[in-house]
Amino acid sequence: MRQESKNLSELSERVLKGDRSAISKAISAIENRDEGSDNLLKRLFPHTGHAFIIGITGPPGTGKSSLVDRLAKIYRSNGSKVAILAVDPTSPVSGGAILGDRVRMLEHSLDPGVYIRSMASRGDEGGLSRAARNAIRVMDAAGNDIILAETVGIGQAEVEIVQVADLVIVVLMPELGDEIQAVKAGLMEIGDIFAVNKSDLPGSDKVIYNLESILSSKEEWGQSSIKVSAKTGEGLEDLVALIEKYRKIFGSSEAAKKRKLVNLSNELVRNVSFVLSQRAEESLRAGRELQGVVSKVANRELDPESATKILMEAVSNEANSHKHASTTRRSTRRRS
Amino acid sequence: MRQESKNLSELSERVLKGDRSAISKAISAIENRDEGSDNLLKRLFPHTGHAFIIGITGPPGTGKSSLVDRLAKIYRSNGSKVAILAVDPTSPVSGGAILGDRVRMLEHSLDPGVYIRSMASRGDEGGLSRAARNAIRVMDAAGNDIILAETVGIGQAEVEIVQVADLVIVVLMPELGDEIQAVKAGLMEIGDIFAVNKSDLPGSDKVIYNLESILSSKEEWGQSSIKVSAKTGEGLEDLVALIEKYRKIFGSSEAAKKRKLVNLSNELVRNVSFVLSQRAEESLRAGRELQGVVSKVANRELDPESATKILMEAVSNEANSHKHASTTRRSTRRRS
Repeated sequence: MRQESKNLSELSERVLKGDRSAISKAISAIENRDEGSDNLLKRLFPHTGHAFIIGITGPPGTGKSSLVDRLAKIYRSNGSKVAILAVDPTSPVSGGAILGDRVRMLEHSLDPGVYIRSMASRGDEGGLSRAARNAIRVMDAAGNDIILAETVGIGQAEVEIVQVADLVIVVLMPELGDEIQAVKAGLMEIGDIFAVNKSDLPGSDKVIYNLESILSSKEEWGQSSIKVSAKTGEGLEDLVALIEKYRKIFGSSEAAKKRKLVNLSNELVRNVSFVLSQRAEESLRAGRELQGVVSKVANRELDPESATKILMEAVSNEANSHKHASTTRRSTRRRS
Repeated sequence: MRQESKNLSELSERVLKGDRSAISKAISAIENRDEGSDNLLKRLFPHTGHAFIIGITGPPGTGKSSLVDRLAKIYRSNGSKVAILAVDPTSPVSGGAILGDRVRMLEHSLDPGVYIRSMASRGDEGGLSRAARNAIRVMDAAGNDIILAETVGIGQAEVEIVQVADLVIVVLMPELGDEIQAVKAGLMEIGDIFAVNKSDLPGSDKVIYNLESILSSKEEWGQSSIKVSAKTGEGLEDLVALIEKYRKIFGSSEAAKKRKLVNLSNELVRNVSFVLSQRAEESLRAGRELQGVVSKVANRELDPESATKILMEAVSNEANSHKHASTTRRSTRRRS
């Protein structure tokens, strides 16, 4: 225990100095929920708040990764310390070959001053969201000026991740299919800047025109749209100027403060839900009730909603007996 | 209460006779969790088990809807009663315009013998999954022979929905981008038949070749792949023949029974998790603890993981005091 806390304190010191292998170690420990990782986060958290966090999301195939690379290069050339978190919708089976490629590609194209980290969902979206947010916090504590957090804008977890950001860029492109349009619709609420990438393709002016008409109908503070091409570089300096303008005007506003509180509040509620779900699942899988109830439903002696209620009872009785046990233990200790 | 139960019994009778407006009413009641909807499901559930449920999923843009329409037509021409459930990733903001269009389009192209229902996620994925599975059960109880459940194969909830199916068809196409490839990888585990649509596009033979090499490396019972074109109709009769072959061989096997039990078990566990999460969220939003904890985290006096633990305590104390109150009430009643 003593050894562990010494290691932790050493690791957190190294993270605060920006040591890359320490950052990687810390993120892995937090992602795997290793023993002591909560304490590590506790040490690092007071040192967060320096970085400007840019969330980048959008439908699949719109060129988010290339845009992230371009932005990283521009910020690096301005002398900023930059970190990238790339979250990919990889499955447990495929194991993350695509991620590996991505990281290799980035390592070639970027200077070593950019810290890159990938994370895959492995089907556990609640856990991913939590791990990704905490990874961003480690990057922040490590003294990065700009953190680019990239996710595919589909699925609740992915959208939640970018909501930790100070600024959200939604990347779109001309010629999206119907289903992609639906995905896009879901992103209209969370974007600050809508970057229409692949501006060399026909139809990008129309996309901007449609976006502007949607955005102008909203009562909120300025969301804006811009045409870019990660391929040719067109519009990228303008995008950075827009980001910086936004950072100056919005960054210290009351609206920004309020948004941070709402996001934090959502994050904590979601964490609690996630832990409760996990505990319930563990308790059900370990208990005897589940199998019996399932076979009754399979035989149509019991419907799924009634079965859910029976299992709810089982879980809360279980939790209750634990609660009682721990209360008793605690009061005994107090008395002695 | 008496009136309600009379209405319910009338509604369930009409559903069992296949009355379309009753089916729609029942699905809406269950989707909105109206009072009495649990009892409605209880009445209908014993009459399920007749339909053959085909889940159809795949990355965005692969032409799932067209394929579903084609399959519906073929099964109709064989004299089967067919229902379609289309689940779309629509946002609360866009409100489902795309869904509306889809339903209108389908109503034109299909004969009135096909019952069509759309469902949007509205950001509430846990709720969607539950509602969709129960909607399928209503369709089943209404005497449909074939139920086609279509979802975009991204996000945990969408994948869960198709897992209620007896057979899962994953729709792919040639020339998928990198990110779509990652989505595809996640679907390799859940598909029984991989239909490579848009077979007129170049590269479809390569997709089939790659699929076959992945599938043949697995130890499991036969997953298979097939080239189709929903546009030209190529391969569709073969697809139906493959579905029917699968239905005969696999339908009554031990593996199929086992799979049903695993799916049911997952569904019930997920339901319990979902209800617990909802309750925790309600209790936290209603209580005073959350706001105080959030502002401490915002001021970096408390880290998010410690904050989560404090809120976990608050929620379980709350649940516990409810539990005690209800136990007390119950025992008082018993005594009187």
